Parts: sequence; C-alpha cells; structure tokens
Amino acid sequence: MQTHQNAEMKKQTRRTFVASAVTLGASAAASAMPSMEKEKKVLVHHAFFWLKNPDSKEDLAKLLAGLETLRKIETIKQIHIGVTASTEKRPVVDSSFHASELMFFDSLDGQKTYQDHPIHQKFIADCGHLWDKVIVYDAMDV
Amino acid sequence: MQTHQNAEMKKQTRRTFVASAVTLGASAAASAMPSMEKEKKVLVHHAFFWLKNPDSKEDLAKLLAGLETLRKIETIKQIHIGVTASTEKRPVVDSSFHASELMFFDSLDGQKTYQDHPIHQKFIADCGHLWDKVIVYDAMDV
Repeated sequence: MQTHQNAEMKKQTRRTFVASAVTLGASAAASAMPSMEKEKKVLVHHAFFWLKNPDSKEDLAKLLAGLETLRKIETIKQIHIGVTASTEKRPVVDSSFHASELMFFDSLDGQKTYQDHPIHQKFIADCGHLWDKVIVYDAMDV
Repeated sequence: MQTHQNAEMKKQTRRTFVASAVTLGASAAASAMPSMEKEKKVLVHHAFFWLKNPDSKEDLAKLLAGLETLRKIETIKQIHIGVTASTEKRPVVDSSFHASELMFFDSLDGQKTYQDHPIHQKFIADCGHLWDKVIVYDAMDV
C-alpha cells in the first residue's frame, strides 16, 4: 500500500511536472502572442454602429476617424476599430452593422473612466448624428 | 471660380495633413500597448449566446466548458470566453446574453478553418441544444 502510494505520488509529481511544462509552453507561446489573457481577466467592451446613411462612405470615414480619437484614452488596454468582415453569410451572422469598436479594460473602473472621459464625450458630441443605432456588449472573462 | 477651387484644394491638403498627424499620434500610442494591431490587421469574431434555460447555472457551466474546448484550434490567435459584465445599465447596452466567445484570426482563411474544424463541429453537436439564440459579428480591422 505504501509502495502503491509512493508510486501514485511519483505519478502525481510527474503529472504536475508535465502540466507545468505544458503551462510554460503555453506561456512562451502567449508571450510571443500579443495577449493580456495570461496576466489577468479582461473586460471586453464591444460596440457596433449602424449608420444613418448606410451608403455614405464619407459618413463612415467620419465615424472611423472619430473612433480613432478614442485610442488616446489611457484605461483602454487594447483597441480594434473595424468594419464588417467579408466572412461567409450564415443565418447566425449579423453583417448589417457598419463599424465596430472593440476595447479591453482591466477593470470595471477602467471602463467607467472611459465612459466619462472627455475624449469619449467629444466623440459622442461630434459623431452621434452619424449613427442610427448602437448596440454595446460588455463581457467579463470567466 | 478657379481661385475658389484652389482654396478648396489647399483646405483639402491641410485636412489630409491633419488627419495623417492624428493617425501618427494614434500609432505611437498603439505601440506602447500589448496588441497585435501594430503588426497586422485582425479579424475579430464575436459570438453571443442566449441560453434556452436562462436560469440554469448547470447549462451555463456546460456551455462555458464547451467553449473552452475551442481554445485548441490552432488558427485562433487570441480567445476570450466571458459572461455578461456588471457594467452600468444604459439603453445601448445589451446585457441579455449569457455567454460570449471572442476570437482573433489573422485572416479570413483562419476563420474558415475554425468554422470547419472538428473541435468546433463537436462543440456545436454537444452544446447546440443549450442555446436559444446565437448572434455572430465578424469585423475586420481598418
């Protein structure tokens, strides 16, 4: 029994070692990858915009330029400004939006600071007339 | 008329210069941030899930466990699996979803490989009965 336990412990140790090695491998891969997820949980803030004038390239350019100004807000840890991608049209894919703003924050407070920030408020004042609809989704990493 | 046109052109040139200066400022800020965007454009794939049994913690746990299996798909460059965040309730915020899956790909092909991947197909087969609705948004960085 003792021997069996020792064998079990050895197995456990080996498993822990293998798990650690895998984790280290993953960390090494992660550090080569531009990612925050190895450090802390991320608050994902994703806003989708539908233009009032869907065919106006000028309005889209204005909106995208407005979104670019948000990059300077210091609590934003990562930002992606995009337009509808030309992925396959499937029933679950909503490709009707015109612009998207994806941001990572490292806390609820960081997101609140962004909401109240003068640069964000100026963006809404300057560009709010361009959109017909906005939907925002806030998700917290599990 | 000609003079007016020249004045317009000068204004346009100035606008272009100002726009470029703004872009340069944004790039400098981006390089200090942990992000892929300075290297290459990202295809952002974001899926939101609404459970058939919204109050079932067990079903949510099953769905989240299913989403975790997707991490192994090699064309995913970054992944965040989350639940509704407790940010401020504002009219534009849709906090009715139950789980969210955010992925970055570096190409349309990478996203297609993910769609067709056996691990993804197994996830749909195993977990598809758990959700009532899915909305997917695909955005390409500008």
